[in-house]
Amino acid sequence: MVGGGIGAFIGGVHRMAAALDGEIELVCGAFSSDPEKSKASGAELGLPPDRCYGTFKEMIQREKRLRPDKRMQFVSIVTPNHVHFAPAKMALENGFHVICDKPLAFNMKEALALEKLVEKTGLVFALTHNYTGYPMVKQARQMIKHGELGNIRKVVVEYPQGWLSTKAEDTGSKQAAWRTDPQRSGIAGAMGDIGTHAENLAEYVTGLKITEICADISIFVPGRQLDDDGNVLLHFDNGAKGILHASQISAGEENNLNIRVYGEKGGLEWRQMEPNTLIVKWLNRQTQIFRTGVGPLYPESLAHTRIPAGHPEGYLEAFANIYRNFAHCVRAHIEGKKPNPMYTDFPLVGDGVRGMRFIEKVIASGKSKSKWVRF
Amino acid sequence: MVGGGIGAFIGGVHRMAAALDGEIELVCGAFSSDPEKSKASGAELGLPPDRCYGTFKEMIQREKRLRPDKRMQFVSIVTPNHVHFAPAKMALENGFHVICDKPLAFNMKEALALEKLVEKTGLVFALTHNYTGYPMVKQARQMIKHGELGNIRKVVVEYPQGWLSTKAEDTGSKQAAWRTDPQRSGIAGAMGDIGTHAENLAEYVTGLKITEICADISIFVPGRQLDDDGNVLLHFDNGAKGILHASQISAGEENNLNIRVYGEKGGLEWRQMEPNTLIVKWLNRQTQIFRTGVGPLYPESLAHTRIPAGHPEGYLEAFANIYRNFAHCVRAHIEGKKPNPMYTDFPLVGDGVRGMRFIEKVIASGKSKSKWVRF
Amino acid sequence: MVGGGIGAFIGGVHRMAAALDGEIELVCGAFSSDPEKSKASGAELGLPPDRCYGTFKEMIQREKRLRPDKRMQFVSIVTPNHVHFAPAKMALENGFHVICDKPLAFNMKEALALEKLVEKTGLVFALTHNYTGYPMVKQARQMIKHGELGNIRKVVVEYPQGWLSTKAEDTGSKQAAWRTDPQRSGIAGAMGDIGTHAENLAEYVTGLKITEICADISIFVPGRQLDDDGNVLLHFDNGAKGILHASQISAGEENNLNIRVYGEKGGLEWRQMEPNTLIVKWLNRQTQIFRTGVGPLYPESLAHTRIPAGHPEGYLEAFANIYRNFAHCVRAHIEGKKPNPMYTDFPLVGDGVRGMRFIEKVIASGKSKSKWVRF
Amino acid sequence: MVGGGIGAFIGGVHRMAAALDGEIELVCGAFSSDPEKSKASGAELGLPPDRCYGTFKEMIQREKRLRPDKRMQFVSIVTPNHVHFAPAKMALENGFHVICDKPLAFNMKEALALEKLVEKTGLVFALTHNYTGYPMVKQARQMIKHGELGNIRKVVVEYPQGWLSTKAEDTGSKQAAWRTDPQRSGIAGAMGDIGTHAENLAEYVTGLKITEICADISIFVPGRQLDDDGNVLLHFDNGAKGILHASQISAGEENNLNIRVYGEKGGLEWRQMEPNTLIVKWLNRQTQIFRTGVGPLYPESLAHTRIPAGHPEGYLEAFANIYRNFAHCVRAHIEGKKPNPMYTDFPLVGDGVRGMRFIEKVIASGKSKSKWVRF
Repeated sequence: MVGGGIGAFIGGVHRMAAALDGEIELVCGAFSSDPEKSKASGAELGLPPDRCYGTFKEMIQREKRLRPDKRMQFVSIVTPNHVHFAPAKMALENGFHVICDKPLAFNMKEALALEKLVEKTGLVFALTHNYTGYPMVKQARQMIKHGELGNIRKVVVEYPQGWLSTKAEDTGSKQAAWRTDPQRSGIAGAMGDIGTHAENLAEYVTGLKITEICADISIFVPGRQLDDDGNVLLHFDNGAKGILHASQISAGEENNLNIRVYGEKGGLEWRQMEPNTLIVKWLNRQTQIFRTGVGPLYPESLAHTRIPAGHPEGYLEAFANIYRNFAHCVRAHIEGKKPNPMYTDFPLVGDGVRGMRFIEKVIASGKSKSKWVRF
Repeated sequence: MVGGGIGAFIGGVHRMAAALDGEIELVCGAFSSDPEKSKASGAELGLPPDRCYGTFKEMIQREKRLRPDKRMQFVSIVTPNHVHFAPAKMALENGFHVICDKPLAFNMKEALALEKLVEKTGLVFALTHNYTGYPMVKQARQMIKHGELGNIRKVVVEYPQGWLSTKAEDTGSKQAAWRTDPQRSGIAGAMGDIGTHAENLAEYVTGLKITEICADISIFVPGRQLDDDGNVLLHFDNGAKGILHASQISAGEENNLNIRVYGEKGGLEWRQMEPNTLIVKWLNRQTQIFRTGVGPLYPESLAHTRIPAGHPEGYLEAFANIYRNFAHCVRAHIEGKKPNPMYTDFPLVGDGVRGMRFIEKVIASGKSKSKWVRF
Repeated sequence: MVGGGIGAFIGGVHRMAAALDGEIELVCGAFSSDPEKSKASGAELGLPPDRCYGTFKEMIQREKRLRPDKRMQFVSIVTPNHVHFAPAKMALENGFHVICDKPLAFNMKEALALEKLVEKTGLVFALTHNYTGYPMVKQARQMIKHGELGNIRKVVVEYPQGWLSTKAEDTGSKQAAWRTDPQRSGIAGAMGDIGTHAENLAEYVTGLKITEICADISIFVPGRQLDDDGNVLLHFDNGAKGILHASQISAGEENNLNIRVYGEKGGLEWRQMEPNTLIVKWLNRQTQIFRTGVGPLYPESLAHTRIPAGHPEGYLEAFANIYRNFAHCVRAHIEGKKPNPMYTDFPLVGDGVRGMRFIEKVIASGKSKSKWVRF
Repeated sequence: MVGGGIGAFIGGVHRMAAALDGEIELVCGAFSSDPEKSKASGAELGLPPDRCYGTFKEMIQREKRLRPDKRMQFVSIVTPNHVHFAPAKMALENGFHVICDKPLAFNMKEALALEKLVEKTGLVFALTHNYTGYPMVKQARQMIKHGELGNIRKVVVEYPQGWLSTKAEDTGSKQAAWRTDPQRSGIAGAMGDIGTHAENLAEYVTGLKITEICADISIFVPGRQLDDDGNVLLHFDNGAKGILHASQISAGEENNLNIRVYGEKGGLEWRQMEPNTLIVKWLNRQTQIFRTGVGPLYPESLAHTRIPAGHPEGYLEAFANIYRNFAHCVRAHIEGKKPNPMYTDFPLVGDGVRGMRFIEKVIASGKSKSKWVRF
């Protein structure tokens, strides 16, 4: 693991998600840019001292020298955006599979380089757009893919949060600090941090591609350097229209990612904060409530459910689905087998490139006076 | 009453709303453009034959000749858009107060003429943007007005319906037929029919004015002449940003008008289909559920509630609040008294002019290649 | 109208419900046990002085002497429980149809006498168990009647309120005062006031009859004389089991009447505070949300809906359905015609007798040490 | 681990819950009463062959002989009810801490023996009444404990499921088979399997003790030997009244455990299927929605939350809270330290004894003709 030392948020999430199914073991890490802190974090996590490295470079070099059955089998990158590229590149170049937090990189150039490298090495690369790991998101995708809603006409995807309504970056929040810092986050704030999740979810669920965007990007909190709110009109490749808005100044909102998709025959609605429910509305007949594990569901949904209906599965379980599928593919790669197609569904480097393009284009559109920017 | 004959929808709504409080009596009408049908409708409604008129002209002329204590006291106009102006103008010119369905008129020119005429005559004129009649909408407005949410930053207003997902205008739906016909509806379809409600609600609740819009207007159902979907970015006069979308092809949606407003200190959320609930979300403290009639509420909210908490009040009660307040002001006008300020809250001709401007601008923006259109 | 003077709650409800459809006109009344107050109330309601009576006796006697086309056509009784019997009896004996608030009477003896009198006179008698007037309640009843849930096994009906959590009867609440007074309310408090609604709803929706009860009846507020809470186990005539609980000390609850019914094939759930939604849960397939006016519904439900789907209909509309059907039957009686079977559905005197038996038995069971009391 | 072989439900839950926080490692097991199957299950779980035992006896004996730092540190018992006692007893007698699935034992005698043994050995014993592990359940408990609702008056606890609406035990469901079999389940079916969870939750949240019950226990599915539905009136030690109902024939219900508690000042409501929400209703002021991790919460709630607000935590996370606290106390015991009081909250053997008493009394009351049975 690269990053995720004491006090980090997403590092702990990755560790719990990886641990849940008992198939992945944390064996080593470079948990901080500060070597001392890195080692302390590793010790706290119960790792032996010789596997707690001061830097990711040291980790990759030393692990590579271990016997194949002793060394780490993949690298998990959970650092801020500006430290995705270097460890990912080095891991791939040294033959390690990689699972990386989103967005893929600090800028488009890095993203394209990683894409090329993954292609060249043939290694397994996963990006943790974790919200696609929910069973009901997979059900929604399959329903649309199988034409149950007819041709898609309209998509509304929202990601309101409120936690940056005040200048939290000035009051000691480590999470706020790097996300609002152009040196660490890149050209985008909210649009990169959560807008990319919304973009990814919309394309994942509908199977459509965004072709044009028109964005209104704002900084509401005085003194902040990166966007904390964005409202975006979307055009999709099949002629569907859409709206994407993401915000970190929607005061009082927790983590309210949600999507509605309307086709000719019906619409569906999924809300991350009640993730086991998928509401499907039909033209001229009763709305249905699909629930994780209940009644006839697509096998892609059932395959990502662990416990019987009515026992709520949450964020960590969805995140763990990404890890489990990634691990399945890593194992297949190692064993030279073909992975089970049911467990190959996780976001790829190409999804990461699309996310980076979204960041680039949405910021450009925000500054543009013409209406539509090609995606 | 002008319009609202047998088979009409909104005419019946107006009659029920007017009757609810026992203060308004239907005394005469010209219920259809077809004189025979008009009289038949009047008879069915239990009116004496001599008060069932063939045309609104006849109605206004004859009623005017009746003794003041016998004649109608105001005119209620519930016709399609292209028949708002003529009866409203004639009624005002003949000294009758007017309550008129929205949008105000067929086009901007008519709207401005009516505005001038209302000003000149000093008569009472109400426009039935009925959704502002709900007690929880009034509570929301007062909370924002009193600064409870702080400065407003973001507004999301939605009005999805699904009933025009298919070409209902070709299968005998009278409601669909005139709404999708440019000769009767005007230059806009969904944006005029329901987009104006959304615009009105957003300005009513926030107390802000829209200053710029950027619209993506669509016709999804093949062969339809007017828009059936629109997504709009909004700028408000205090710097707030917003999104308005309205649709009649959001398959499976009933009449799902809703609004969310976020300020510096918190956000609020109201949904027309559960109108007795107002959710108020706070920065760093628990969300509150405000309910019609429960706990401390602003007097403006309580004054528009009829029954104790937990006894749901619906669409007709909200509509009746517009009628009751209008009637209160008509009575005050007749008696030469000042109305009770608590009961003067209903949409005015100026709100109607803003609605017409919204129609004009949103259609223009939909056709424009430049991003922002001044409102 | 008997009762419902200034300051009363249910009188205003009856008037609004009666006015809504424009088919019923308030023509006279004895609005208070205090003749002066009665007349003042009538004046405020806009009645001519000669139709504002000092007492119900005077009203019935004088109205009877009017020409049939001038006199009132039925009597609406909206007084506290101890003043139901006398005006109802006198009205019936003088040939007037009666619509009466629930519970039917002060005690069982009165109830049975009224039942006999209705039978003897052949007049129309309605009891305003208004909650059965909701379109979704009618849908639920029809679904069960048509066997959609299979044989019914379990019923849970609840009526929690919180407004008597403190001794409101001592602080000037007129509503609280008579409801907690054995001289005016009868032997039961909450169980009579709202428990009877729950009992009526359960039998109406399921079509079953309660055969045995086991009750735990409590007075929680010190010094109160009548029950403010009751928990009751139920046995039904088909072998189904059930639970009924009603409370006026469930602090924080508004008027949360709700029912769940489970059969062999599925279950349904209806909540009065969101009355346009009926949730139907199926064994091994997706839950459905039935909504007022949406999709295929039983004609009995559609016939009690006034406006299109998504325009919420509330308490007054449901109450008005009782009045409209009652008025339809009164008119048919007067005209000597058979009423339309679709509009004959309202609670009858027999339902009122069952309600009185419920009161009698539930209080008896509450005092009994043996488990089951025959109903 | 004892039990939880291939095809079992709760064994997998225990393993995921134990793994989540990376503090507990599965080191050995006797996963089935069939030694071959036990070993196969262990192999599939990645255990070395010499730690996959044929029987729990073998496991306990052999592990005991290992060096303290190599041997298992506690035993997790996830077998059907009739195989709780023997392995628990043997583990305790051999110095191993125990975490055991509920109900505690097959009958009261076994339960009391275990209680005595735990007391005697001083070992750590946890019972997985996992629903008390949810952060919002802990918040509810603390709010009541701190008097926020005032003296408690009424408790309604429900546990409806529908999965035994048909005779699933005859169609190959292993889960259904042992739960409906008196030889493996004991004297109760639904009341033991889920009624005990409801009883435990009610006492945990309120801090009250049940003193008397009056039960109506049913078998609805023909041919079934144990109860599949029960409705129970409750009396609590402070004078509060309550209702508990649990059912496995509430067709269409998933796993709908929920509780409502009403005190003098307000009420609260928690539903397991949306576990991150706690609704608190107040007398005469707005209802509040408490959410996991949002706003001021009691430290006991926050200490059992892993990820930021809006990232839903589910069943496994709550279950893992029991494991984490148990592991904390085991570690403290081993290290001879005092555990952190914040992490000592998990169900104890005494809670298990109360659960067994509930089973005994509720079945007795179901058969009794007198109303109240002392608890």
